[in-house]
Amino acid sequence: MLPPPLLYTDTHASADMLYFGRVEVHDPFIAFGAGGKKITVQRTLEFGRVKRTSDFDVVLPQEPWLAKAQERYGPRAGVAEIIATLARKYGLRRFRVADDFPAALHGKLIKLGLKLDFAGDQLFPEREIKTDWEAACIREGNRLCSVGYTVAEKILRAARIKGRTLVHRGKVLTSESLRFALETAIREQGGDPRDTILACGDQACDPHERGSGPLRPHELIIIDVFPRVTKTGYFGDMTRTYLKGRPREVQRRLVATVREAQKRATRVMRAGVDGRLVHRAVTECFADAGYETRHTKSGSVGFFHGTGHGLGLAVHDPGRMSPSVASPLKKGSVMTVEPGLYYPGLGGCRWEDVVQVTATGTKPLSKHPYDWEIR
Amino acid sequence: MLPPPLLYTDTHASADMLYFGRVEVHDPFIAFGAGGKKITVQRTLEFGRVKRTSDFDVVLPQEPWLAKAQERYGPRAGVAEIIATLARKYGLRRFRVADDFPAALHGKLIKLGLKLDFAGDQLFPEREIKTDWEAACIREGNRLCSVGYTVAEKILRAARIKGRTLVHRGKVLTSESLRFALETAIREQGGDPRDTILACGDQACDPHERGSGPLRPHELIIIDVFPRVTKTGYFGDMTRTYLKGRPREVQRRLVATVREAQKRATRVMRAGVDGRLVHRAVTECFADAGYETRHTKSGSVGFFHGTGHGLGLAVHDPGRMSPSVASPLKKGSVMTVEPGLYYPGLGGCRWEDVVQVTATGTKPLSKHPYDWEIR
Repeated sequence: MLPPPLLYTDTHASADMLYFGRVEVHDPFIAFGAGGKKITVQRTLEFGRVKRTSDFDVVLPQEPWLAKAQERYGPRAGVAEIIATLARKYGLRRFRVADDFPAALHGKLIKLGLKLDFAGDQLFPEREIKTDWEAACIREGNRLCSVGYTVAEKILRAARIKGRTLVHRGKVLTSESLRFALETAIREQGGDPRDTILACGDQACDPHERGSGPLRPHELIIIDVFPRVTKTGYFGDMTRTYLKGRPREVQRRLVATVREAQKRATRVMRAGVDGRLVHRAVTECFADAGYETRHTKSGSVGFFHGTGHGLGLAVHDPGRMSPSVASPLKKGSVMTVEPGLYYPGLGGCRWEDVVQVTATGTKPLSKHPYDWEIR
Repeated sequence: MLPPPLLYTDTHASADMLYFGRVEVHDPFIAFGAGGKKITVQRTLEFGRVKRTSDFDVVLPQEPWLAKAQERYGPRAGVAEIIATLARKYGLRRFRVADDFPAALHGKLIKLGLKLDFAGDQLFPEREIKTDWEAACIREGNRLCSVGYTVAEKILRAARIKGRTLVHRGKVLTSESLRFALETAIREQGGDPRDTILACGDQACDPHERGSGPLRPHELIIIDVFPRVTKTGYFGDMTRTYLKGRPREVQRRLVATVREAQKRATRVMRAGVDGRLVHRAVTECFADAGYETRHTKSGSVGFFHGTGHGLGLAVHDPGRMSPSVASPLKKGSVMTVEPGLYYPGLGGCRWEDVVQVTATGTKPLSKHPYDWEIR
């Protein structure tokens, strides 16, 4: 049996902490397991709210436990000594900790006689497998993505082409203004979109470039949106590609190839299949169609990111489909499927959907049309 | 001289990383100093953007350096071995790391022969001292707060009292709807407000409760907003208290006392003064006025949080004014000043402004009226 978990972090930095306690606290705090119970230590400021709204079975006030630790270890006692004092009270000597547990605290706890086992990649391996409730939360996140796309499409449709710009309601349509409209629509329905990518033309060839300035007609526009559902903390994550105006044949072919790669990847997926195999389905599809991937001093072109990642309380949850890391797909895990191709001069295209892995295949958790040509 | 810094984290989790590289990257990456230069290792996906937009002097591609590390250390080489390979290349054996450096990686690097010194609270002590440019960025964040308050005040003024609710444009005014209006106004001007607290009556007695449901007339409403300026990453952080309707005398007295405490705290502040002294000015002011602080099993009443904290690339930047931690104010540091009083039944009040510490006093970095009674 695994030793109980020990955490010292905040819920912004750690989805594990949010998973464990189901309450947001924005400064680092102590949490651990003991006898199947979830225990936390909270400052006065957070105490009442955490006691009332969290999943913790026991919420201890920090001040008296600091006093007890100082009694035992002297006036300089702090977080490490509080943990040691509590470990003693609960009869615990060994915990498991995340690989990114704070190193200085780790050293102090070892000196205080505790044993700490590194959990490897995952402190809570069960976090990778999503319950039906969690799948529904992620589906809601993706519904919010679709809400955003619907608004973006409406604006792109209404916009007029004027030379090299798009004009909407008398103003030049920009990445910023379209992003604002899309994000506002998502927020109105209970989502919290952050860092939405809305990039046009060559900007979109840098997959993590957020995009700025005027949107251009006849160029590919990538919209990658990953809103958090405010109520539950779970994320949606989808990408659609658009073009306002008249696509060139090379753009049509690019877009169709990426969509074909996405379908092929999804067809390969089921519980037990290595993520590398899914990724290979994509690279083979691109190679078959003659799309080359090249790395140069100034950057890369072609397909140079992973095919997908786990999605849940973090945008990048456990689970990967990439070239280098062995990662067998788990039944019940939720994965993005997001191949893309990027060629400066031609533009970028990415399609991203979300599926839950089953014994025999996948179940879609995202839904939105793939109509990308907007006249 | 301090050994050069070594970081392995992402810019969501670590303001130090954002301070060091001045570029947002949302998965952990390697960064370090060598010979006064800032060096980073980036995956293909981030490489071009980081090279183009960051403060790093040298941006190395991860894949070839991983290959070199694997050549030297075997096929299982990873982040630790890349760091060791680069340390060798740059002739470095000792780094300083943050106390929250990932513990598993720390252990591996020690085994690989590196020396790592813990930096204590602050990896970059200079981060606490703000340049004129940084002060201007924070001032802009606070201007966005003021934009939000102006909108909130306008809506509260326009709202009609109907029994125990407020009605605005035919709808019951709630924490959620007022927060949405305020946050939208801030976003329109380039801010990114998150987790804005907009809490009424007893809800506001839990200082980190965000607030939900109908806003009540004749009750105190706390609005604590801390938007990030999207362009620069710096935060504003202000709190105002309001009441729509007719305040009771006890509410008037509460509000006036908290404002008086804020003034007294600010008057005590200057470079070299211990944050504990500033905090004591607040507790004495409250004690003099007869406001008691009590801790009970279900929570606390009175004044039970710190008087202020540093503000910058993090909402809680280095620097504290609290009862227990010795923390001399530094010249050029930027601090919030935010006393509050909370009594269920009566409600909560907090005033929060931001100042920069000078040799002789403080310079205000926030500005907005304190008119809290809205008829």
